[in-house]
Amino acid sequence: MGPDPAVAAVRLAVRRALAGLPPGAMTLVACSGGADSLALAAALAFEAPRSGRPAGGVTVDHGLQDGSDEHAERVVRVMASLGLDPAGSVAVEVGTEGGPENAARVARYEALGRTARRLRASAVLLGHTRDDQAETVLLGLARGSGARSLAGMPPSFVRSDVRYERPLLDLDRATTQRACEALGLKPWDDPHNDDPSYTRVRVRREALPALQRTLGPGVSEALARTARLLRDDADALDAFAEDALTRARDGASASEGGLSVEVLEGLPKAVRTRVLRTAAIEAGSPAGTLAAVHVDDVDRLVTGWRGQLHVDLPGGIRAYRRCGRLLFGRP
Amino acid sequence: MGPDPAVAAVRLAVRRALAGLPPGAMTLVACSGGADSLALAAALAFEAPRSGRPAGGVTVDHGLQDGSDEHAERVVRVMASLGLDPAGSVAVEVGTEGGPENAARVARYEALGRTARRLRASAVLLGHTRDDQAETVLLGLARGSGARSLAGMPPSFVRSDVRYERPLLDLDRATTQRACEALGLKPWDDPHNDDPSYTRVRVRREALPALQRTLGPGVSEALARTARLLRDDADALDAFAEDALTRARDGASASEGGLSVEVLEGLPKAVRTRVLRTAAIEAGSPAGTLAAVHVDDVDRLVTGWRGQLHVDLPGGIRAYRRCGRLLFGRP
Repeated sequence: MGPDPAVAAVRLAVRRALAGLPPGAMTLVACSGGADSLALAAALAFEAPRSGRPAGGVTVDHGLQDGSDEHAERVVRVMASLGLDPAGSVAVEVGTEGGPENAARVARYEALGRTARRLRASAVLLGHTRDDQAETVLLGLARGSGARSLAGMPPSFVRSDVRYERPLLDLDRATTQRACEALGLKPWDDPHNDDPSYTRVRVRREALPALQRTLGPGVSEALARTARLLRDDADALDAFAEDALTRARDGASASEGGLSVEVLEGLPKAVRTRVLRTAAIEAGSPAGTLAAVHVDDVDRLVTGWRGQLHVDLPGGIRAYRRCGRLLFGRP
Repeated sequence: MGPDPAVAAVRLAVRRALAGLPPGAMTLVACSGGADSLALAAALAFEAPRSGRPAGGVTVDHGLQDGSDEHAERVVRVMASLGLDPAGSVAVEVGTEGGPENAARVARYEALGRTARRLRASAVLLGHTRDDQAETVLLGLARGSGARSLAGMPPSFVRSDVRYERPLLDLDRATTQRACEALGLKPWDDPHNDDPSYTRVRVRREALPALQRTLGPGVSEALARTARLLRDDADALDAFAEDALTRARDGASASEGGLSVEVLEGLPKAVRTRVLRTAAIEAGSPAGTLAAVHVDDVDRLVTGWRGQLHVDLPGGIRAYRRCGRLLFGRP
């Protein structure tokens, strides 16, 4: 008799992720003790020795609740009992910058990165599932800032020289919960996961269920598929825009500085607005406050030119047009 | 004292749309009698004479409810009283193909198109608002088929040689309701707008309010902005893909047919998958059933080639790779 189907699904996902990693090097799993990362840790402990890889586990003690250190010790013991070696915890101090969720994330990645570099790990596995991805897409939808904000979490990324992988992005949370149950593992329910002061919690408990009731049970899968497709779109358009920015900076009057209006006019709008956004940010307009409406105003200097004087952008940057060039500067 | 702000907002939107149309020719408004298209009709009747344009109104009697003919007559009388000339109704027979909503839409556009061509109208104005757009984006989200399905309704399009404009896409439904109230116009509430057997009605009454509660009141605006950005993205990527398809068909071994694997390999994934999708559809695979997973399988013949025999696609079409070409055909 084979393993429970949920256990098998998580293991298969981990096996596939390991196949893409250099052989021999240590693979780490980041484990909070919740069902997702616990199932992931168990699958890594099972799969890694079968391809001759060392595997370790790390849990981050955010110090945000009483007894968080004891909880971290419990997670370390579970990881060690699964066969992960080393299994350890790292205590961090969470700041306040960018809100509590963001500050916790920054501190967490800083700790994971330090640990991974110290252990020369080839990658850190993260337990995000398709449900997390669907929530992330809906949170991005609220920003309304285009493909990149709907692209969700990438399955693989590098941060401060450390590679991270999300092997469970195609599985749902219910599968990780069933896998833990089948393996006799008791997941920890983070009280933050039920705190409705977090937007993500409200999305999980209210918005997604409402979408499922109205649009059908496949909504999370559709959101995750959307994220994957839009990430490819955003990557392609960013690459086209990078290339176009170089061409717009060169051209007949490159010595004048700025961008060639003629080159800009020849671009599809989606590429041109990306070029203008990048140029404005490089000129000093802050990415966080430079909105689509500002970029649209700059775009009208190119495509709707009727002698406008200039466009003022956040950060005291001014865009203007002179002698066939679009220029950015401080007034 | 100027007009009510809501009335002024609808008029401004119509004035901007008229500015983009050829002068002198008749402009038509499609009016169901609901608040959106009633406010639109009133604004067109007000604005058109001020730029020397004739303006008419047409209502479509779908014949789906008892008394729909009497309702159509009432709408005609209101349009005539606003000063629209001609003001008329067209009765259509709604089929069943593609579901009731789709069949009604097909019949409606057929009737509007016929009327517009007969009157040599330069455009037909449609009353869709930002709320309709947000609903359309959410309905597209459920399909999970990428940028195009999230691009919502275009502000302007041509169908069977007739140009359609949606001047109210940046206004919300509440504005059209306030405009009707300020003008003393009594909108008609289509009972279909409250029938929860329509997915769109459930999205309006349940999904959007839940998103507003969890993500904030600006969600409809964010969805509409997303639609606009993703439409630009999809247009750009479709244009790149069209160009790439031509290059992939040419090349050193064009006489072999199919597509050059070398050209395909050099494309960003978002462009390549669009090229492969178009080629598969042109080879006979039905667009409606050809899903992203099928295209991904074909993509692996290009980027993950390990001697796979072939990929079977809906419609009995088979994709295979031979001598550096990717070919589509029937087995």
